[in-house]
Parts: sequence; structure tokens; C-alpha cells
Amino acid sequence: LRILSLLTDFGLTDPFVAEMKASVLSICPEVRIIDITHQVEKFNVGMGSFLLACAAPNFPAGTVHVAVVDPGVGSERRPILVEGRRSFFVGPDNGLLIPAARSDGILHVYELTNRALMSPRVSATFHGRDIFAPVAAHVACGTAPKDCGRQISDYVKAAFSEPTIETGRVIAEVIHVDSFGNIVTNLKREHIKNVAFGERIALSVGHHKISARYIGSYSDLRGRELGFLVGSHGYVEIACREGNAAKRVGARSGVGVRVVGV
Amino acid sequence: LRILSLLTDFGLTDPFVAEMKASVLSICPEVRIIDITHQVEKFNVGMGSFLLACAAPNFPAGTVHVAVVDPGVGSERRPILVEGRRSFFVGPDNGLLIPAARSDGILHVYELTNRALMSPRVSATFHGRDIFAPVAAHVACGTAPKDCGRQISDYVKAAFSEPTIETGRVIAEVIHVDSFGNIVTNLKREHIKNVAFGERIALSVGHHKISARYIGSYSDLRGRELGFLVGSHGYVEIACREGNAAKRVGARSGVGVRVVGV
Amino acid sequence: LRILSLLTDFGLTDPFVAEMKASVLSICPEVRIIDITHQVEKFNVGMGSFLLACAAPNFPAGTVHVAVVDPGVGSERRPILVEGRRSFFVGPDNGLLIPAARSDGILHVYELTNRALMSPRVSATFHGRDIFAPVAAHVACGTAPKDCGRQISDYVKAAFSEPTIETGRVIAEVIHVDSFGNIVTNLKREHIKNVAFGERIALSVGHHKISARYIGSYSDLRGRELGFLVGSHGYVEIACREGNAAKRVGARSGVGVRVVGV
Repeated sequence: LRILSLLTDFGLTDPFVAEMKASVLSICPEVRIIDITHQVEKFNVGMGSFLLACAAPNFPAGTVHVAVVDPGVGSERRPILVEGRRSFFVGPDNGLLIPAARSDGILHVYELTNRALMSPRVSATFHGRDIFAPVAAHVACGTAPKDCGRQISDYVKAAFSEPTIETGRVIAEVIHVDSFGNIVTNLKREHIKNVAFGERIALSVGHHKISARYIGSYSDLRGRELGFLVGSHGYVEIACREGNAAKRVGARSGVGVRVVGV
Repeated sequence: LRILSLLTDFGLTDPFVAEMKASVLSICPEVRIIDITHQVEKFNVGMGSFLLACAAPNFPAGTVHVAVVDPGVGSERRPILVEGRRSFFVGPDNGLLIPAARSDGILHVYELTNRALMSPRVSATFHGRDIFAPVAAHVACGTAPKDCGRQISDYVKAAFSEPTIETGRVIAEVIHVDSFGNIVTNLKREHIKNVAFGERIALSVGHHKISARYIGSYSDLRGRELGFLVGSHGYVEIACREGNAAKRVGARSGVGVRVVGV
Repeated sequence: LRILSLLTDFGLTDPFVAEMKASVLSICPEVRIIDITHQVEKFNVGMGSFLLACAAPNFPAGTVHVAVVDPGVGSERRPILVEGRRSFFVGPDNGLLIPAARSDGILHVYELTNRALMSPRVSATFHGRDIFAPVAAHVACGTAPKDCGRQISDYVKAAFSEPTIETGRVIAEVIHVDSFGNIVTNLKREHIKNVAFGERIALSVGHHKISARYIGSYSDLRGRELGFLVGSHGYVEIACREGNAAKRVGARSGVGVRVVGV
């Protein structure tokens, strides 16, 4: 039983997502389709790549992930398939797939050139329905990646920004604000290894200076206190209890985070 | 393997959609359920019928489409089943199903009268759960349309408005604004057949006069330039690149569009 | 064929829901997953329990309902499984599951202690993915409830508030405002048994005094008239036709409702 996941910036009001699913099921009726999200901010490739990288490792081996955040649709940007060690990734060659694929382990990358696997008529504006969904459906039903196109190595190699470590401080960044208002940074457990559990440290989020305590879970916080913890995807996040930390400190994706004295 | 699609104005917060799905699966456990959208504007039958007509042609033959945008629930409006050439359509007799069914090819229309196919207790306010979902599930599992009720011909025959063509100008209408802000009109390729690819023409959208270039895809646009193209559903749409064209010109569904000199 | 339902306050933008589904399908690939809603107001256990109680009775026998509205994640609150007469309920021990489970008929309640049924690494902040989803998937695939943990009787026994009946008046409460603006109260048919169909009565919703007519369906209303009816979940709701009753009278969850002269 194969699973095919979908991640887009199409939203849930228009019929776009359903058209992709109809396209998939017309080719591979037995595949299970799971939505990751369709509410990536329009054209925000970075946000899409982060959410895909969070979700993909949880899926069983053999899953085909289709992701479409694609400001360059209809231009020269290529459609690609990444064959990973456990999973497959189908979407535009704009970096969207790479962080997830890299943590899966990239074996080969193919430019999708085999027209026989696509819709008979490929529109200029909806490659999700006409290229990515049908090719992914064929892969889910057993088509070999090498039969989808020609192997390439000059694909767009995007990655999340990495924190900079200087003596006594770390310069990091907000990579996501989740719907609870938790501020997810690109810091990982290794960056806070010198901080003792329960210890309070000084951080700045943008121009906002805060003091936060190293906690295990949101429920360890009292009142309006701010804390930080290693979240369920392995990134350090700043949180408050039953409140919206991001609103309190005015944080949003891309804002700088400085940690002093670690 | 049968597919059953759902389109409603129920939103995703209330349990209504899940209750319809539970109703379907209680009767026909093996059917695949695909959501088209549940975010049709409340009671906007025209918007619902447009989105259904866009999505339905992409589904495999044999799909049962259930659509519920139903301000008349509990009144004398009839529940119907349309048997099309490739697909089935189940919902209220208020025009919602007709544009999609017409492009599928209408063979027969039935008023749903067979109580044995409905919930044992039919509520006055939720025919989606108590009539449409169970009848559609029976059809998906093989019940013949003629066993669902009595054939009728006086169903509500709604359709999208058609553009008016006069000498040297076309009077059209905005039929949808998608979540990217693309302004979808009721113009089709045939209405712009005298415009050369790359040519710039004058249009008015409501009281807003614009100049737009005939493009192939959004990525053909430069900066804040406006363009128009034949979109993925066959309708002419007005767009800008990585921006919201509808917000820029104040367009919304129903607003008039005039094209001069075509 | 088993069905597993999901209800959370996670929203649809983050990858949380997809991670739960991936977790389920990794263990029990053949289960059907149905979303009830993921748009419960953050941390609003009462709202979640109401929506679950509305939806659950519609599902076939054997369904496993997973619900996560969990401000206490990572604290001492216990993860539980309720074995009901027809269905199973998995989630936090904070009352969320109880109204739905009670109307199903509670047979046994278990604290989830069997680590072999959970993720190899249980995070402190995402028990939906690491405890509830995998345990529920095992139950859907045939694991006996008693193998999930130890039986308990001191679980949190939340319930919806019941109306108070005094001579000549009933003191009730708004328990939900649906997305159409219908004001759902905790009154049931029995509380209005002395009101004649078509009769107009006086109510107050918070400080707002209204007059409403006992109707069968929304379409019985004329113009801006307010009415009340027994809704599709068995609760009395106050409505207007193609308008938002809750906005008109400023109603929201928890506001008092008084009915005089019944």
C-alpha cells in the first residue's frame, strides 16, 4: 500500500487540490492520499520546505511526497523528482523539496521529461494537476524513477539557514511560527547543550529582549512566563503557556534570534 | 473502485462534513471520499456551481459528486440526482449541480423519493447527512439511479451567465476570484481569438480601467504589470505576478468586465 | 474495515495533523481516517467535547475516535482510552472524550501505559503523534483495549452544563455557535415540549431580549425574523434565514439563555 502526500499553497477554497487528487486517482486508484497542508503562505517556498521537512520523516518508507509552491510555474524552472533513500519527492526545481529530501538521503534527481506520464494537455499555469500529480501517481504505482526523465545534478540546492556560532553567543533565526504562536528557530539541541535544564537565559527576538527558562513542555510554564524547549521536530522553540508567544514578542519568520552567554 | 466527491458551504470547523462522511461510510465502506471544497461562501449557489464545474471533469468516470449549498433546506425544494454520461450528481434542486452536469452530459434527472435509501430519521435542517450522503453512497455502491426516485424534467436549469458580444466589444463578468487573487471571467478562448499573443488590450473591471497583456503564464509578467491568460479551467483570467490582481482592481464575483476593440 | 476519526485544535496550516496520520498509517495501513475538525478553538476543551459528541454517533460501530485538545500535554495529566459500547475514544484525561463516550455508553476506561504501543521516542509536546495516534492505530488494527494499559475509574468526568428549570422559566446556556451563526443551546426538545409549533416566545441571550418563533427549518423564517428549532444534533438552536443570528444578538459560547413562560 503506497501513500502519496500533498503540500501546496493552494488553500482549501478553490478546486485545485481536488483536481490534483482526481488526477492521482485516475492513474493510481489504490494509493492513499494524505494532505500535509495547503495553507503554505502564497509563494513562500521557505515555509513550504520547512513544513515538508517536518512532516516527511513520519511517513512510512515508499511514500511519494508531492509539493507545489511554485511562483515560477510556466517559466523555465524544471519539474523534478528526487529519489531518496526511503521516499520520493515530486515538485518544482526551486529548492522546495531539498531540505526534506536531504534528511531522507538524496540518491538521484531527475528532471521530469517523460510526457507519457503527464496529462495529455499540460496547461501553462497548473503543473500540480498536469505534471506533478500524474507523475507522482505513476511512481506510487510502480514506475521506476529513471523512467520519469533524465538525471540531473544542477538542481537548486536550497537549505534552511544555519545558526552562526561566535564566542559566547549564537546568531539564529525564526524559521516558523506555528498556529499556537510557538516561535520555532533554526537552533537545535546541540546549540543549547551548555544550558542547564531549568536555567533562565537572555535572548533577543528581533529588537525584543526576553528572558526565558529551559523547560520540558509548555505545561512547565507558570502564568505569563516565557520558556524555550526542544520541540517535536527537533528545533528550539520559544513558547508561553496557553498564549501566543509570537504575538507577545512580535516574531515572524525570518526575524533574527540572538542568544547570549551560551 | 468508486469515488465520491463532496462540495459544501459548511466550512471545516463544525462536524457537518464529518457527519456526511460517516453517513457515506456506514452504507458504502469501500468508496473513496475526496473533498472538493467546504469553503463555498455561505448560500452562494453560483460560486458552488462554478467550483463544482471546474473540478468534476478531472474525476474518473463513475464518480458520484455530492454538493450542498442549500439555502432552501427544509422547504419545498426537491432533492435530486442527475445521471450524467460519465458521472452522477446529488444535491438540492436549486441549480447548483447543473453547470457541472451539463458539461458531463445530462441523461436523466430524478427527484429523490425512495425513503429506503435515506436515514431512518430525516432532519429538517441537515439533508446533506440525512438524504444526499446516504443516497449518493447507495449509488456509489451500485444502486441504479432509477431506483432513487421518479424522473423529472422541470428541474432548476441554472447556468453561468454568458458574455454578450457587440461590434467591437464584449460585455462579460467576473465569475470567481481565486485565492491567489486571479480574476476569473466568463470569457473563453473563443472570445479573445482576435487578440495576438503578447498584445496589450484595454479592459474595464467594474469602474476600473486597466491595460493587460495576453500572456501564457503568470511568470511571463514583469514587475506590477497586469496580464490575462486562458486559465487551467478554460476561462480567461486577469492576473499579476506574485500579487493579488483582484485586490488591485477591486474585483469580486459578479462585477462587469468590458473588453474594447476585440 | 475500521474507521479512525481525528478531532484537534491543531489547525490545518502546520504539519501536526499529517504527522498523526502518518503515525496511524505506519501501524495500521488499512484504516480509513476521517477528520472531524482541526479547528477547535485553541485549548477549548468544552468546544472540542461538544463537536466530538455531535459527530461520533454518526460513525459506524467499531470506529476509533482520537481527540486532542490538550493544554496539559507534558504534565501529569494521563493519556486514556475509553472503551464504549460501539466505539473507542483515545485522548487526554481532561474531560474531552467523556460527553461523546457517555452517550456511546462507557464500558471501561484505561490509562495508556503500554509503551510498546507508542512511538519509540515520546516527545514532551506532541502526544497526538507519539501516544494517541499510535495507540489508536493499534486498537483499530485489533489490539484489545485491556492491553493498552491499566483500568482506572478516577478519570475526569466532564459533562455539558444542564439547563436549570424553575417555575415558569428555564435557565440555559449557549454551548456552540456554528459557522452559519446558528446559536446552539443546551436545551433539548423536552425543555420546549409545552411550546406549540409556530408559537412565538420571549428569550434572552445574554443581555439581549429577543422574540423567536418555533419553526421546523430555517426556510420557514421570513425576512429578518428570528426563530428557534430542534437542530440536527437534538439541541434547540436560535437562527435567522440566510443571516448570522449570533452576530445579531452578540451570542457566543457560554452566554446565558433564559426562556420565560414555558
